[in-house]
Amino acid sequence: MKILILNGPNLNMLGTREPEIYGLDTLDKINTELIEFKNHQKLEAELDFFQTNHEGELIDKIQEAKENYDGIIINPAAYTHTSIAIADAIKAANIPTVEVHLSNIHSREDYRNISYCSKNCIAQIAGFSKNSYKLALLGLYEYLKYNE
Amino acid sequence: MKILILNGPNLNMLGTREPEIYGLDTLDKINTELIEFKNHQKLEAELDFFQTNHEGELIDKIQEAKENYDGIIINPAAYTHTSIAIADAIKAANIPTVEVHLSNIHSREDYRNISYCSKNCIAQIAGFSKNSYKLALLGLYEYLKYNE
Amino acid sequence: MKILILNGPNLNMLGTREPEIYGLDTLDKINTELIEFKNHQKLEAELDFFQTNHEGELIDKIQEAKENYDGIIINPAAYTHTSIAIADAIKAANIPTVEVHLSNIHSREDYRNISYCSKNCIAQIAGFSKNSYKLALLGLYEYLKYNE
Amino acid sequence: MKILILNGPNLNMLGTREPEIYGLDTLDKINTELIEFKNHQKLEAELDFFQTNHEGELIDKIQEAKENYDGIIINPAAYTHTSIAIADAIKAANIPTVEVHLSNIHSREDYRNISYCSKNCIAQIAGFSKNSYKLALLGLYEYLKYNE
Amino acid sequence: MKILILNGPNLNMLGTREPEIYGLDTLDKINTELIEFKNHQKLEAELDFFQTNHEGELIDKIQEAKENYDGIIINPAAYTHTSIAIADAIKAANIPTVEVHLSNIHSREDYRNISYCSKNCIAQIAGFSKNSYKLALLGLYEYLKYNE
Amino acid sequence: MKILILNGPNLNMLGTREPEIYGLDTLDKINTELIEFKNHQKLEAELDFFQTNHEGELIDKIQEAKENYDGIIINPAAYTHTSIAIADAIKAANIPTVEVHLSNIHSREDYRNISYCSKNCIAQIAGFSKNSYKLALLGLYEYLKYNE
Amino acid sequence: MKILILNGPNLNMLGTREPEIYGLDTLDKINTELIEFKNHQKLEAELDFFQTNHEGELIDKIQEAKENYDGIIINPAAYTHTSIAIADAIKAANIPTVEVHLSNIHSREDYRNISYCSKNCIAQIAGFSKNSYKLALLGLYEYLKYNE
Amino acid sequence: MKILILNGPNLNMLGTREPEIYGLDTLDKINTELIEFKNHQKLEAELDFFQTNHEGELIDKIQEAKENYDGIIINPAAYTHTSIAIADAIKAANIPTVEVHLSNIHSREDYRNISYCSKNCIAQIAGFSKNSYKLALLGLYEYLKYNE
Amino acid sequence: MKILILNGPNLNMLGTREPEIYGLDTLDKINTELIEFKNHQKLEAELDFFQTNHEGELIDKIQEAKENYDGIIINPAAYTHTSIAIADAIKAANIPTVEVHLSNIHSREDYRNISYCSKNCIAQIAGFSKNSYKLALLGLYEYLKYNE
Amino acid sequence: MKILILNGPNLNMLGTREPEIYGLDTLDKINTELIEFKNHQKLEAELDFFQTNHEGELIDKIQEAKENYDGIIINPAAYTHTSIAIADAIKAANIPTVEVHLSNIHSREDYRNISYCSKNCIAQIAGFSKNSYKLALLGLYEYLKYNE
Amino acid sequence: MKILILNGPNLNMLGTREPEIYGLDTLDKINTELIEFKNHQKLEAELDFFQTNHEGELIDKIQEAKENYDGIIINPAAYTHTSIAIADAIKAANIPTVEVHLSNIHSREDYRNISYCSKNCIAQIAGFSKNSYKLALLGLYEYLKYNE
Amino acid sequence: MKILILNGPNLNMLGTREPEIYGLDTLDKINTELIEFKNHQKLEAELDFFQTNHEGELIDKIQEAKENYDGIIINPAAYTHTSIAIADAIKAANIPTVEVHLSNIHSREDYRNISYCSKNCIAQIAGFSKNSYKLALLGLYEYLKYNE
Repeated sequence: MKILILNGPNLNMLGTREPEIYGLDTLDKINTELIEFKNHQKLEAELDFFQTNHEGELIDKIQEAKENYDGIIINPAAYTHTSIAIADAIKAANIPTVEVHLSNIHSREDYRNISYCSKNCIAQIAGFSKNSYKLALLGLYEYLKYNE
Repeated sequence: MKILILNGPNLNMLGTREPEIYGLDTLDKINTELIEFKNHQKLEAELDFFQTNHEGELIDKIQEAKENYDGIIINPAAYTHTSIAIADAIKAANIPTVEVHLSNIHSREDYRNISYCSKNCIAQIAGFSKNSYKLALLGLYEYLKYNE
Repeated sequence: MKILILNGPNLNMLGTREPEIYGLDTLDKINTELIEFKNHQKLEAELDFFQTNHEGELIDKIQEAKENYDGIIINPAAYTHTSIAIADAIKAANIPTVEVHLSNIHSREDYRNISYCSKNCIAQIAGFSKNSYKLALLGLYEYLKYNE
Repeated sequence: MKILILNGPNLNMLGTREPEIYGLDTLDKINTELIEFKNHQKLEAELDFFQTNHEGELIDKIQEAKENYDGIIINPAAYTHTSIAIADAIKAANIPTVEVHLSNIHSREDYRNISYCSKNCIAQIAGFSKNSYKLALLGLYEYLKYNE
Repeated sequence: MKILILNGPNLNMLGTREPEIYGLDTLDKINTELIEFKNHQKLEAELDFFQTNHEGELIDKIQEAKENYDGIIINPAAYTHTSIAIADAIKAANIPTVEVHLSNIHSREDYRNISYCSKNCIAQIAGFSKNSYKLALLGLYEYLKYNE
Repeated sequence: MKILILNGPNLNMLGTREPEIYGLDTLDKINTELIEFKNHQKLEAELDFFQTNHEGELIDKIQEAKENYDGIIINPAAYTHTSIAIADAIKAANIPTVEVHLSNIHSREDYRNISYCSKNCIAQIAGFSKNSYKLALLGLYEYLKYNE
Repeated sequence: MKILILNGPNLNMLGTREPEIYGLDTLDKINTELIEFKNHQKLEAELDFFQTNHEGELIDKIQEAKENYDGIIINPAAYTHTSIAIADAIKAANIPTVEVHLSNIHSREDYRNISYCSKNCIAQIAGFSKNSYKLALLGLYEYLKYNE
Repeated sequence: MKILILNGPNLNMLGTREPEIYGLDTLDKINTELIEFKNHQKLEAELDFFQTNHEGELIDKIQEAKENYDGIIINPAAYTHTSIAIADAIKAANIPTVEVHLSNIHSREDYRNISYCSKNCIAQIAGFSKNSYKLALLGLYEYLKYNE
Repeated sequence: MKILILNGPNLNMLGTREPEIYGLDTLDKINTELIEFKNHQKLEAELDFFQTNHEGELIDKIQEAKENYDGIIINPAAYTHTSIAIADAIKAANIPTVEVHLSNIHSREDYRNISYCSKNCIAQIAGFSKNSYKLALLGLYEYLKYNE
Repeated sequence: MKILILNGPNLNMLGTREPEIYGLDTLDKINTELIEFKNHQKLEAELDFFQTNHEGELIDKIQEAKENYDGIIINPAAYTHTSIAIADAIKAANIPTVEVHLSNIHSREDYRNISYCSKNCIAQIAGFSKNSYKLALLGLYEYLKYNE
Repeated sequence: MKILILNGPNLNMLGTREPEIYGLDTLDKINTELIEFKNHQKLEAELDFFQTNHEGELIDKIQEAKENYDGIIINPAAYTHTSIAIADAIKAANIPTVEVHLSNIHSREDYRNISYCSKNCIAQIAGFSKNSYKLALLGLYEYLKYNE
Repeated sequence: MKILILNGPNLNMLGTREPEIYGLDTLDKINTELIEFKNHQKLEAELDFFQTNHEGELIDKIQEAKENYDGIIINPAAYTHTSIAIADAIKAANIPTVEVHLSNIHSREDYRNISYCSKNCIAQIAGFSKNSYKLALLGLYEYLKYNE
C-alpha cells in the first residue's frame, strides 16, 4: 500500500509561522513523527511526502498519483478555499483522498468555511494539530483495507 | 481519564437508516467497537455513552460533563447546523470537545455546511464512517495527555 | 392500514390562538372530525394522534412509527422551518409522510417559506384550515393503496 | 357552483413528459378522473377545463372567471415561480383560488421554491400526482360551501 | 406628433380591481380623461391606446411603434418587474418611452422594486393614480418638442 | 395652498455639475421656470424654495412644513438612498410629499435603486430633467385639490 | 399581579460560564436579588421562576402562563436566534412579554443579531448584566398597570 | 434529418436594433446564409425557421417539434434569463437542443448571466454573431449523427 | 454624577408623530417625567438634555461629553441604522453609553434591525415607550456606581 | 494565420477522467482530430497546442501569444471560475480569444456558472464535447478573416 | 497650487481616541508635520485645513473648493462608507481628490470595506498613520504637476 | 535596510497593456524611476525587484524574504482578489508589507473590491499610477525606521 502525503502553500513555514495557531513543529518533524506513528501502529504502508506552494504542482502530483499510489492525504492549506482545479484533479485521479488541517478551520474566518476540495474527498480531519496527519493515515489505511 | 460519547438525533436508527450513507452497523455495534479499539490501542480511558433525539438533553449532558468528564466526543447530527444552544453549552462546560460525523458533511447539501457546534470544538472529524469515532478518541486522548 | 397524525408546537392552543389565522376549532375537535371524515369516506384505516411542543418527541414518534404505521400526517408547525432533525427522522423512518398546514404558509412571512421538512415528504397541503388534515388523509390513503 | 380548472405550460405534455416525475396519465385522463371523483363524492359543481402555454391567456381566463365562476383550481406550472402578472390577476379577479402541483415542488430545485402565485391563493396542494386535483376540488368545494 | 399609450396585464380590470390601491375609474375613463387633458393643455398630439395581458403583444406593439409613433407611454404593470424582453424591445424600437404606474411602486412589496423596463426608459412616473398618465403625456410631449 | 420645494445635496451645483446627466440650467433658473409654469397653468399655489447640503436641515424644514404648508416637493438627491431620517421626517410631518429626480435614477447605478424616501411619499417622478419639478407640481396640486 | 420569569439554555451555568461576558452571580443569586428589588421598589407582584435547557419546556411554560400569569419576562438565550416555535408560543399565549439578555447581544456575533423572539415581545433589554432582569420587571410592571 | 431554428423576442428587429451589439444583418439574411452554409458543408438536413415575440408560442413550437424534428436550435433572447417554462418545454420535448446567442452574453449585464434555458440544452454557443447559428448547426448535426 | 440625554432626528415631533407607535407625550413631558423618576428613585445624578435632527451635532455633543459627563443615554432614532460616525464617536468619547428606543425596533421593518450604534454601547432598551428612558437611567446609574 | 490552442488543468487526463462527462478521447486524439478538421475545412491556419495545470503558465503563454499568434482558443477548465489573472492576461494580450468547454458548464454546479474568463473573450462554446474545439476554430477563423 | 485638506467626523479626537489604532498625535500635530513635510520636499503648494463632524459641511467645503483649489485631500472617516452625497460632491466639484485613511481600512470590519467616496477619487492611501497625509500630498502634487 | 518589490501577473505587460488604465511606462522604466526616487529622497535602502505571473512563485519569494528583507512592497494584481495563499504567506513571513496598485481598484469592477491580501498588509496605496510605488517606498521606509 502506497500513500502520498501532499502539503500546500506555506506549510513549509511550519514551526516559525504563527505558532499559536499552527504549533512549533516543522513539517519535517511532523513527517518523521508520522512515519514513527505508522511503525508503531504497524500499518503496512509506504509513505511519500511532497510540499509545494504552487497550485499547479499539487495538481501535477495528484494526477501522477493515479498510477503510483493507493491513497492521498492532502493539506491544501489556503487552496482549500479557492481551488476548484485541485478538487477536479482529485476527482480525475479517482484515488481515495483525505483532507487534513492542522487548525480547526470551522472555527476561524468565514472565508475558511468554503471548501471546494472537500467535495471530492472521502473524509476530513481538522484541528488536531500535527496529530491530524496521524489520524488521517490511520483512517485512510483502514478505509483502503476495507474497500479493497 | 473519563470521556463522554454523545450522539444526537436519529443516530439510534443507525443500521437501518440510509445505509448507503451511514453504513450497516448499529450504534451499539459502533460503541462496542470503540471500546475494543480503546483496549487495543491501550488508551487508559473510561468511556460513557449517551444518545438522545432531544436538543435539551444533549445540553443537560454537556453541562453535567463539566464535573465528571475530561473530554467529550459529540456527533450532534442535524443539530450541528441549527443549534446555537449546544455550541453555547460546550463553551459553558469548557471541556475539550471533538465533533464527529459519519459522513463527510462537507460534500453534502449546502445547509449541512453551516456548523455552529464547530465554533467551540477543538477539532472535527467527518467521513470515516464508524471509524470517525475511533480516530476522534485517539485524537482527543492524545490532546488531553499533552495538555494536562 | 395504520396512520399516525403528528402535531407540533402550539397546535394544542388551537381554538384560542390567533383565531383569525387558525380558526376556532380545538385540536380535539379537528381530530374528531377527521375520524368522522374517515368513516364517511369509508377509508379502512386506523388513526392515532399525538401532539407535543418538543422537537425531540416528534423525532421519537417518527422513529417509532417505522415499525407500527403505514403512513404519517405531520403538521410540524414552527419546526417546519428550523428543524433539519425532523426532516432527517422522516427520511430515516422511510414511511410515506404528508406535511399539513392550517394556513397557507406560502403567503405569510418570508421565514415561513423555508421548509426543511418538505424535502423528505411525498406531498404538502397548506391553507384549507382543519380540512387540510382531511385532504391529507384522503391523499395519503390513496397513495398507500396505490403503492402497495 | 361553477369551478374553472386551469393548467399552465407543458401540462398538455403529460403522459409523455418525464413520467418518473409527472406520472403516465394524460391531462385528458386526469380531467376525466376528476369528473368521476366529483360524481362519486356527490359534489354539486360544474367543472370547466382550460390548458395553455401562454401566460397572457391564463390571465385572460382568470379575469373572465370573475363573472362566471365561483372558484378556480390552477396549476400554473413553471409560471408559478416567475409570473407576478398571474398572481395579480388572481387578486384582481378576487375569486377563491387553489394552487395545485403534481410533484412536491418544495423538494425540488431551489428556483421552484419561490412562488408568486401562492401569495393570492387560499391554499396549495403539491405532490399527490393526479390526485392533487381531486383533493383541491374537494377542499375548494368545502371552502365555498362554508364561506357562502 | 403621434404617441402610443400601452397598458399591460390586469389594467383592463381597473375600476373593479383593488380600488383602494388602483382607484375607481375604468381604463376607458382614464383614456378619455387623457384626451380631454391633451385638448385642455393644447398638446398637438395624436393618441392611440392599446391594452393586453400578453407580454408578447406588448413587444409586438412596441416594435411596430418604431415606424409609426414619436413616443410611447407604457404601464407594463406586473411585467415591469419580470420582463427583460419588453425592456429589450424598448431599446430595439429606440423611441422615447415613459414608464407610468398608478400606485407608488417604490413603497410596495420588495419584488415591485426591481424594474427591468426602467433601464431603457427616459423617465418614470409612479403614484399619481390616473393623473400619472396625464403628467407622463405632458412630460413626454415637452421632451419630444425639445429634442426634435 | 402653500407648497414647499426642497432640494438636497449638490443640487446648488446645477448648471456646472455633470451637465450630460443633469442639464445646463441652474437651480435658480429651474425655480423661476417652475413659477412661470405655475402661472401659465393657473395653479393657485404659493411656492417656497429651499436648498441645503445638510441632511439635518432637510429634516428641520420638513418638520416646520407641518404647520405651514399643504404639500412638499422634495429632491433628496443622494440622501434618497441613505437617509431613513428624512423618510421618518416625512412620515412625522404627515404632509403629502412628492419625490422628484432630474435623471431617471432607475437606469443608473445599483445603489441608486434603493430608496428610503419613497416609502413615505405619495408619488415619484424621475428623468424629465427640470420638467420633473413642473410635473410634480401639477400632480401634487391636483392631488391636494382632490383630497381636500 | 403574577409574573413568570423564564430562563433558557445554559443560564443554569451562570456564575461559572464565561464570567467575563455573563458575570459571577449564579441564577439563584440573580433571582434572589430580583425579589429584593421588587420589595424595595414596592412592586405588588408575585414572581415565579423557571429555568430549562429544553425548547419544548419553554413552550409548555409559556402556554400554561396564559391562564396563570399577567406577564412574562423571558431570557431565551441561544433560542432567541433559532426558535420560531417560542416566538409563536408567545403570540399564542397573548400575554405581555419582555425579552431580557445579560450581555448586549447587538454588539456580539452576527448570528446573535437575528431574533425571532422579539417579533412578539413588547420590549427588549440587553446588556445590563443581572440588572437587565430588574429593569425588565420594573418596565413590565408599569406596562401592566398602565394597560389594565 | 429535420432541424427547427427558433428565434425569440426582438430578433425580428435584427439589422436595425443596436447594430453595434447585434450586427447589421436581418434575420432573413441570417437564415439564408444558414441554408447556404448547410449546403456548402453538405449537411443532409432540412431546416425550418420560426420567430416570435411570444413566450407561449415558443413553448408551443418546442412541443410540436417532439413529433416532427430531430433537433432544435434556439435563440431564446431575453427569455433565456426569465423563462423556466421554455426550459421545461425543452425537457418535456426531449429533443437535443442547442442554445445560441449572437453576442457573448457572459460579458454583458449581470442579469444576462442567469440562464434557465441552458439547464436542459446539450450545448451553448454565444458571441459569434450570425455565425453562432452556423456553428450550432454543424455541432448539432454531428451530435445527432453520432448519437443515432 | 452627570448624565447627558441625547435625542436624535424627529424625536422633537413626539406627541404628534404617529402616536400609535410613539405615544402621545411630547419630548418635554418625557424629560420632565425622567427628572421626577430620578428624584423618586433618589438617584444622585444631574441630567442634561439635548435634541437635534443633525447627525453632526450628535457627534459634537458626544465628543464634548468626554470631559463633562459620566454617562450618556442616547436615542439615535433613524441614525441608529445608518450612522457609523455616531458609533465611532461613542467609541472615541469612551463614556458608558446606553441606547434607548421608544418602540421595539426588533419587531419592525428589516432595515431597523441593523444597528451600528449598538456596537459601542454597553446596553440597549427598546419598546417601553417613554419608560425606556427611565429604565435606561436606572440601569446606567447602577452601572456607573458599580464600575467606579 | 496562427492560432494557439490552450488547455488548462486536468485536461491532460482526458480519456480517463470521468468519461461520462468528458468523453473517452485523449487530448492528443482531440488535437489530431482538430488538425484533420482544419484540413477538411480548408482553413489556412497553423495550430499550436499547449496544456498545463499551472495558472501562471497559461498567463505566460497568453502573453507570449501577443507577438506570435492571431487568435487563441482556450479551455481554462476550473480556472474559468476562479482566475481573474487569466482574464486580465487575455485583455492585456489583446488577441481575439474564444473560450471552449467540453461539457455544458451552464447546466452543472452553481460555482461553474461564474466565469471571469468570459469577460474578455469574443465568444464561448460549451457542451459539444471534442467538437467544441472544431466549432471554435471555425468560428474564430471566420472572425479573424472578417475583421482583418 | 492650492490644496484643501479635509477631515471628517471624530478626527478632531485624534490623540485621545483609540490610540492603538489611530496613534497618539493630535490633528494639529499632524497638520503641522504636513506643512513641514511640504517645505522639506519643496512642494510649491499652499495648504488649507478644515475639520468637521457634519456631512453637510464637508459637502459645502468640497463645493467651494471648485473655485479656490487645485486639489483636495480628504479623510472622510466614517462617512467613507455611508455617504453617497460626499461622493457626488467630489464628482460635482470635479477637482482631483485623494482619499486618505490613518488605519488600513481594508483589514478592519466588513462594513469598512464599502466605500462610496472612492468611486470619484483618483487615488486612495490607507494605513500609514499620520504619514498617509504626507504621501497623499506628494502623490497629489505630482499628479497635478503632470496633468496641468 | 533591504526592501523587496514584488509584481504579480500581467505587470510585465505594462506599457502595452490597456494604457488608458495602466499608463505607458514599462515595468523596467517604473523600477528605474523608483531607484532614482530613492536616491533623490536619500533613502538608505537596497531594492530588489521580482515579477512573475505565478501565484506559487510570489509565495516562494515572500517566504524567502523572511530571512533577507526588512520590508516588502507588493502589487499582487489580479491575485489581490483571489489568493488567500499569498495573504497567508505575508502573515507567515511576518515582514511589514505594503500593497500597491497602479489604478484605483476601489472605483473599478465590484470583484476588484474584495482583497484578501490587504488583511495582512500594514498599508495600501492605489491609483497614483507609477508613483504608487514611490509613495509606498517612502511610507514603508518611514514605517521601518520608526518601528525599529
